[in-house]
Amino acid sequence: MATLSPAELQLLHRYWQAANYLAVGQIYLLDNVLLRQPLQKQHIKPRLLGHWGTSPGLNLIYVHLNRLIRRHNTTILYICGPGHGAPAILANTYLEGTYSEVYPSVTKDLSGLEAFFRQFSTPGGIPSHVSPHTPGSIHEGGELGYSLAHAFGAAFDNPDLLVACVVGDGEAETGPLEGSWKSIHFLNPVRDGAVLPILHLNGYKIAGPTVLARQSDDTIKALMEGHGYEVFFVEGDDPLLVHEQFAQTLETIYTRIHKIQQQARQQEIQQPPRWPMIVLRTPKGWTCPKQWNDKPLEGSFRSHQVPLDKVTENADQLALLEEWMRSYHPENLFDEKGALLPELAALAPPGDKRMSAVAHANGGRLLQDLQLPDFTQYALPISSPAVSVGMATRQLGQYLRDVFALNQQHKNFRLFCPDETASNKLDAVFEATNRCSSSTIINTDDHLSPDGRVMEVLSEHLCQGWLEGYLLTGRHGFFPCYEAFITIIDSMFNQHAKWLKTCNELPWRKPIASLNYLLTSHAWRQDHNGYSHQGPGFIDTVVNKKSTVIRLYFPPDANTLLSVTDHCLRSKNYVNVIVAGKQSELQYLTMEEAIPHCKKGAGIWHWAGHNDDGQPDIILACAGDVPTMEAVAAAWLLAKEVPHLKVRFINVVDLMALSPRPYHPHGLPDNDFNDMFTTGTPVIFAFHGYVRVIHDLIHGRPHPARFHVRGFMEEGTTTTPFDMVVLNNVSRYHLAIEALKRSIPAQEDAQKAIEHFESKLTQHHAYIRTHLRDMPEIENWNWKA
Amino acid sequence: MATLSPAELQLLHRYWQAANYLAVGQIYLLDNVLLRQPLQKQHIKPRLLGHWGTSPGLNLIYVHLNRLIRRHNTTILYICGPGHGAPAILANTYLEGTYSEVYPSVTKDLSGLEAFFRQFSTPGGIPSHVSPHTPGSIHEGGELGYSLAHAFGAAFDNPDLLVACVVGDGEAETGPLEGSWKSIHFLNPVRDGAVLPILHLNGYKIAGPTVLARQSDDTIKALMEGHGYEVFFVEGDDPLLVHEQFAQTLETIYTRIHKIQQQARQQEIQQPPRWPMIVLRTPKGWTCPKQWNDKPLEGSFRSHQVPLDKVTENADQLALLEEWMRSYHPENLFDEKGALLPELAALAPPGDKRMSAVAHANGGRLLQDLQLPDFTQYALPISSPAVSVGMATRQLGQYLRDVFALNQQHKNFRLFCPDETASNKLDAVFEATNRCSSSTIINTDDHLSPDGRVMEVLSEHLCQGWLEGYLLTGRHGFFPCYEAFITIIDSMFNQHAKWLKTCNELPWRKPIASLNYLLTSHAWRQDHNGYSHQGPGFIDTVVNKKSTVIRLYFPPDANTLLSVTDHCLRSKNYVNVIVAGKQSELQYLTMEEAIPHCKKGAGIWHWAGHNDDGQPDIILACAGDVPTMEAVAAAWLLAKEVPHLKVRFINVVDLMALSPRPYHPHGLPDNDFNDMFTTGTPVIFAFHGYVRVIHDLIHGRPHPARFHVRGFMEEGTTTTPFDMVVLNNVSRYHLAIEALKRSIPAQEDAQKAIEHFESKLTQHHAYIRTHLRDMPEIENWNWKA
Repeated sequence: MATLSPAELQLLHRYWQAANYLAVGQIYLLDNVLLRQPLQKQHIKPRLLGHWGTSPGLNLIYVHLNRLIRRHNTTILYICGPGHGAPAILANTYLEGTYSEVYPSVTKDLSGLEAFFRQFSTPGGIPSHVSPHTPGSIHEGGELGYSLAHAFGAAFDNPDLLVACVVGDGEAETGPLEGSWKSIHFLNPVRDGAVLPILHLNGYKIAGPTVLARQSDDTIKALMEGHGYEVFFVEGDDPLLVHEQFAQTLETIYTRIHKIQQQARQQEIQQPPRWPMIVLRTPKGWTCPKQWNDKPLEGSFRSHQVPLDKVTENADQLALLEEWMRSYHPENLFDEKGALLPELAALAPPGDKRMSAVAHANGGRLLQDLQLPDFTQYALPISSPAVSVGMATRQLGQYLRDVFALNQQHKNFRLFCPDETASNKLDAVFEATNRCSSSTIINTDDHLSPDGRVMEVLSEHLCQGWLEGYLLTGRHGFFPCYEAFITIIDSMFNQHAKWLKTCNELPWRKPIASLNYLLTSHAWRQDHNGYSHQGPGFIDTVVNKKSTVIRLYFPPDANTLLSVTDHCLRSKNYVNVIVAGKQSELQYLTMEEAIPHCKKGAGIWHWAGHNDDGQPDIILACAGDVPTMEAVAAAWLLAKEVPHLKVRFINVVDLMALSPRPYHPHGLPDNDFNDMFTTGTPVIFAFHGYVRVIHDLIHGRPHPARFHVRGFMEEGTTTTPFDMVVLNNVSRYHLAIEALKRSIPAQEDAQKAIEHFESKLTQHHAYIRTHLRDMPEIENWNWKA
Repeated sequence: MATLSPAELQLLHRYWQAANYLAVGQIYLLDNVLLRQPLQKQHIKPRLLGHWGTSPGLNLIYVHLNRLIRRHNTTILYICGPGHGAPAILANTYLEGTYSEVYPSVTKDLSGLEAFFRQFSTPGGIPSHVSPHTPGSIHEGGELGYSLAHAFGAAFDNPDLLVACVVGDGEAETGPLEGSWKSIHFLNPVRDGAVLPILHLNGYKIAGPTVLARQSDDTIKALMEGHGYEVFFVEGDDPLLVHEQFAQTLETIYTRIHKIQQQARQQEIQQPPRWPMIVLRTPKGWTCPKQWNDKPLEGSFRSHQVPLDKVTENADQLALLEEWMRSYHPENLFDEKGALLPELAALAPPGDKRMSAVAHANGGRLLQDLQLPDFTQYALPISSPAVSVGMATRQLGQYLRDVFALNQQHKNFRLFCPDETASNKLDAVFEATNRCSSSTIINTDDHLSPDGRVMEVLSEHLCQGWLEGYLLTGRHGFFPCYEAFITIIDSMFNQHAKWLKTCNELPWRKPIASLNYLLTSHAWRQDHNGYSHQGPGFIDTVVNKKSTVIRLYFPPDANTLLSVTDHCLRSKNYVNVIVAGKQSELQYLTMEEAIPHCKKGAGIWHWAGHNDDGQPDIILACAGDVPTMEAVAAAWLLAKEVPHLKVRFINVVDLMALSPRPYHPHGLPDNDFNDMFTTGTPVIFAFHGYVRVIHDLIHGRPHPARFHVRGFMEEGTTTTPFDMVVLNNVSRYHLAIEALKRSIPAQEDAQKAIEHFESKLTQHHAYIRTHLRDMPEIENWNWKA
C-alpha cells in the first residue's frame, strides 16, 4: 500500500515544484518573477550565478523531511553538505516563512519575491552558497568535507534531535568526509540524538564523474555496512515514483531510529546498533531541460552550475528557460499577491519546528554558561620566581576534571583530542569522565565507556568537525592537540573563523561559545619525536584572521595557563589559541601575579631584569614557555657577566598586546606600549613561533627595526630540548650575545662575555656531535645551568 | 601443503628475530649490544626513545616481502605508514647491508652495531621516526595519514613495481587515509604498477583502542570490498603459524596481481579488476613481555612505545628486559664479530632489489629532465602595456598541453587537480591527454580514459599525496588548485618541505623534481563563489619554511606566467608556488620584457610610473595580478589628478626578492634593492595576500616603517571583483589616496584629488548597497575605469 495518498502526493510534488521554481528564479530572474508576462531578456540578471545541479535533490529531501516533522512532531536539523546548492535551501526557508521573519524586507508577496531573487548572489545581497546568512544552517558548504562531522557534533548530547545530513557525491570524495562515517562508533543512543546521513549520488562533480556514483549498489552497500550503517536505497528519475519511495523509506527509517533509541534507553540492548542511512540516486540537474545543442543537460555535468548560460544572447535558450520554469506551473503554486497557496504553506512545520527556525541552528539561543570552578584553587604555590618546576597542563587537567564534574547535569561540555589526553598530561579528567566509544569495550581498555565525554579519535579533522558542530548548536568544548598537527585542520579553522566573523555582522545570530585550542607537546619539546613534530605554523594561520574573532595566548607557566584558560572558557564567538608545554618547566608567577599579568597581556618582570631604572640599555622580551626560560636565563647570564648593563625584561602572554590597538582590540594603548618597550631601546625578542608574526605585529609601533626576533627557524630533529633552542639560535647564549652586540659591544667586559657565551655554544656543539648519547642538559636544563 | 618448508620457516623466523632484536636494541642499549655479558644498567641508554608496539609487525612484513622478492625477482617499494616504528625498518636496512653502504661508519660488526644502536634517537644521531635518513623510504611516518596516497603516486607509471604499503590501524582512522583507499579506481593495470595495502590491526593507538580493530572481520571485509579490494586476512599470535599463513597469502596475492596485470596488458579484460589487500591482525608489541605489575604489556596500549621504561631504576624490569632480548637468541643470529650469520644474510635480496636500496626510493636516481617546449611560442602579443586583455592560464594550458605531448613516451609527467582543470582554463591539455579513471566510463563523460594523465579527484589530500609519491620516485608533476582550498593540505606541504630540507643535508639523496603549485581561482576573483573561497593563507604557510626549499611567484600576466612556469618545471628540490588568476585580465609585458623581469624578480615599470627622475615622492609597488592592475590604475589616476607628483612603480614577481639576501637566496642584493626602493621614500605596497608577509620580508631593509601595505584583510562575500578590492581597502582609489597622504598631502591639488577619489568610493558604496543587482563594473572593470 502506498505511503502517500494521491492527494498528499500531489501536494508534496507541488511544494517541491515551488521550491524548484524558486531555485531557478534566484539564479535567473530580477523581474517578472512569477512569469505573469512572457519571459524577456530584460527580466534576466546580468550575471548568472548559483548551482542548479544539486538543488532539486536538496529540495526533495527538504520537502520530505518537512512531512516527517509534521507527522511525528519531531525536531530535525538539516545539514546541507552541497552548500553551493543554496538556491534550494534558501527557497525552502522562504517558502516556510522564516526568511521573511529574519529579513523583514523580503516579504511573502510579489515584491518580496523579487527582492528574494535579486539579492541572491548579488553585490549587497547574500552569498551564492549556504552561509551564516541562511536561517537554519550551521554549515557553510563552500569548502567540502565537513558536513557529516558537523552533524555528529550537533547530535551529541541532544537526545531528542534528528540531524539529517546530505552528503553530495563530490564531497564524499574528500578525505575528511570519508573519515567521518566512523563517527557512528562514537554515538550513544541513550544520551545522543540520531544522525541520518543521506548520500546523494547525482553522478558528477564540476566536470568529471564521481567515484561513488560509478560503483554498483552492491559495492556501496558493502562500503556503508563496513562503516557500520544499514543502507536504504532510493533511486529514480520519475518524481512521483521517487516521492513515494522516499516517503516510505523515511517512515521505515524513522521507526528504526526510534526503536534503537527506545531499546537503548530502556537498557534492553547490548550490541552496538546498526543505524540507518539513505543512498539517494537522482539525476544531476533533475527536471531541467534534457539537452541543449545535442549535448545532455539533465543528468550530466553540464547542469552542475547554470545549465543554460546564454539566455540573454540566444533567444532559443531564453525560450527553453521559460519552458523549463513554466513546467513547474507557478500559477498553481502562488496566489495573486505572490504568496504561496495556503494548502501548500500548510505542508511546512509550524514555528520552531521549521528546519529553518530550529533553535539548534542558532546555537546561541540554547547556550548556557559553563559552571566553572575557582581556577585559583589549582594554583601551584610559588615561593619565588624561576626556582621551582611544575607541569602546567597537569594543573590544568585538574581544573578541567572539575569543569566536567560541575557541568555533569547540563551535559554541555566535551573534550576533543586525537588520542593524546593522557600524553598531554590532562589525565586527571579521567577521574570525572571517560573516553567515549560505542564499539565493543574489553577489560584491558583504560577509561573507556559509551558515556565518556572525552572524544578521542586519531583524526584532527573529526575532532575539529565534531567540536564545531557541538559549539554551533550551543555547547562548550576544549581541543588539546599536538601543536604540529593542528595544522592538519588549518582550512577548517579558516572556515570557522569566517563563519564567526560573518555571524558577528548578523544581529539575529546569537553568540556561541568560543572554540578553544590548547596547543601542547609543542615544537620546543618534541625533541624526542623529531622534526615532523616540530611546527608552530598554526599561529601564523590564526593571526591573519579578523581581530574580532581571534585570540592567541602564550602562558609561560601553570598559573598563567589556569588564568588564561578560565578566561577562554567564559568567552564567546572567538577562536582562542593557547600554547603551553606539557613538560616539567620552571614556574614564575604566583596566582596573585598571574591574574593581572594575563589581563594586561604583557608586563615587565622586574625580578628578571637588572638595573632597570626606566632607561634600559636593552630589552629582553619573550612569549612562550621555553623562550621565556631562555630569556630569563639570558638575563641572569648578563647580570652575572656584565653587571653594569641595564636590562629590562618583558613577558608577553597575550600576543595581540603587541599589535597597535587599531588593528586588534587587545593591542596595548600607545602609551602603555611605549612605557613598556620605550620608543627606541633595542629589543631582543624570543618567540615561540616563526619570527615573522612578531615582525608583523610590531609594524606600526615606534621604530620597528629595533626589534630583533628569534624563534623557530625550521631546524629540528630528535635531540635534546636544549639542543633545539641552540639549533634555532634562540638559546640563552644566543640571546645574551645578541643583547650585548646591540647594546654596548664596545666595552671590554661585554666582549669578554660574548666570548664566554660563544665558548659555551662551541662546547655544546662539540659534545652533541661526538657523543651520540643523551646530554646532561636533559636533566640539568634549567635557567642557571 | 605448507608453503614454507620447516627449514625455510626456521630461517625466516630467525631473520625476524634478528630484526626484532635489533629493534629492541636500538631502543635500549648503548653497550653490550649482543648481550655477551649479563645485562647491567650501565648498558642502558640514559633516555629511552622509540616505538616498540608496531615494530614486530613491520618486521614480519619486511621479512616476508624479502622472500617474495627473491622468489619472483620482483621489485618492491616498502612504504611504512607507522613510521614511528623506525626501529624495525632501520633494523632491516642494517641487516641487509644498505645502512652500512650509505653510512660507512656504521659497520657490519660489533662496533658498527654499537654505533647503530647509539645513533638511534640520539642527539647528533638519527630521528626516532622513519625519515629521509632511512634508506629505502619515501615516507616520513611522523604525521599519519598519507602512506597509501604516497604508495599510489609511486605506483603510477611504474608498471613493474609493486608498492607494499603498511597502514597502521591508528593511521587508518585519519581522514586523508580513509580517503586514499579509492585511489584503486585510478590505477591502470596496463601502465601502472601494483599497490598492495597491508592494513595492520594491532588494536591500540597511544592509549585507546582503534575503531577498526574493534570491528569484526565481516565488517572489515565489507568495508574494504566496498572500497574495491579483495580482502585476505592473516591473523594470529603464534609466530610460526603466522609465518606460514602470511607466506602463503603473499604467494596467492602475487599470483593474483600478476594475473590482473597480464590480462590487462594482453587486453583480455573489460571489467575493472578487484585488487588484493591484506588485513593483518597481530598483537601490539608482539613478543615483548606479557605483563608488568599485573598489567598487560603485549597486546595492550602499554607496549605502544617503550614497554619497560624503568629498567635503570628497577632491577626486576632490567632482568625482564634481558630475558626478553635473550628470547630472540642473539647468539644464534650473529657471528663472533657481530655480523649476521651467512645463512640469514642470504635471505635478503641482492643489490638494488633490497627494499632499502631500490632506486625508486631515491627518486633522483631515476629522474629524467622534462622535455619542455619553447615557452615563448605561447606568448600573448603585447603592443603596449595595460591595453589588451588575455587569460594567463589559458596560455599556460597550451604550454602544458605540449609538455604532455613532448613527454608522452617517457610517461613521467602528470597533472593533479581537484576536478578544476577546465574551470581553471587549462582545458587545452585535453587535446593531448584525458582525465584518468579506471572505473566504468559512459558516453556522456568528457575526456575520461584509463590512460589519462590528468588526475582529477575531489580531494586535495589525494592530489597532494599522489603527487608527492610521484615526485619522490623520480617523476614530474603540476598541481593547479583553487587558492583558498590549497590550505586543506597545509600540513602535508609542511611535511614535504621538511623532507626536502632534510634531503638537502644528505648527499646520497639525489635531487628530485620540484613540487609545483598553480594557485588560481584566487581570492580576488572568487567574487562569484564568495567568502569561503577567498583565502590567500597558503602563502603565509609557505613563506615560513626554509629558504633553501621554497619559492613564491606572483606573475601579473600571461607572459610572466609562462616564463615563471617554465623555470619551475626545470627546477629541483623546491616547492614552487605560482599565484595567477584565470580570468580575462590586463596584460603588461611582452615576452622579451617578461623574461628579464621574472629573472630579476622585481623591477621598475617606467611606463606605469610618472615623473620618475630617480628621486620619487612616492613608490607604488605591487605583487599579484589584481593588485598590479589596481596599482597601475592608481598610478594613472595620480598622474591625471596630481601631475607634478613623482611616482615610481615597482612590480614584484618573485616575492623573495623583497627579503634581505641573507634570509633568502632570491633576495635582491642591498644595492639593487635600495636603487629600486630607495632608502627613504614612502612605499604603498598592494599585495595579493595578507599584509603581514610583506611586513616580515622587508624587516631588515632600510626604514621598514615607510612601507604601507594593503592586501587581503578577510573581507569578502559574493559581489563584484571591483567591490572585492574596495572591501579590502586595496582599490586604485585607496592606493591613490594613501599615496597622496604619505607624500604631499598639504598641496591643494592633492587634497582635491583625495576628495575626488573618496567621492568615487562613496559612489561605489552607495551603488552596491542600493541596487542589489550586478554592477556595471563587472563588465567595465579595467584600469582606466
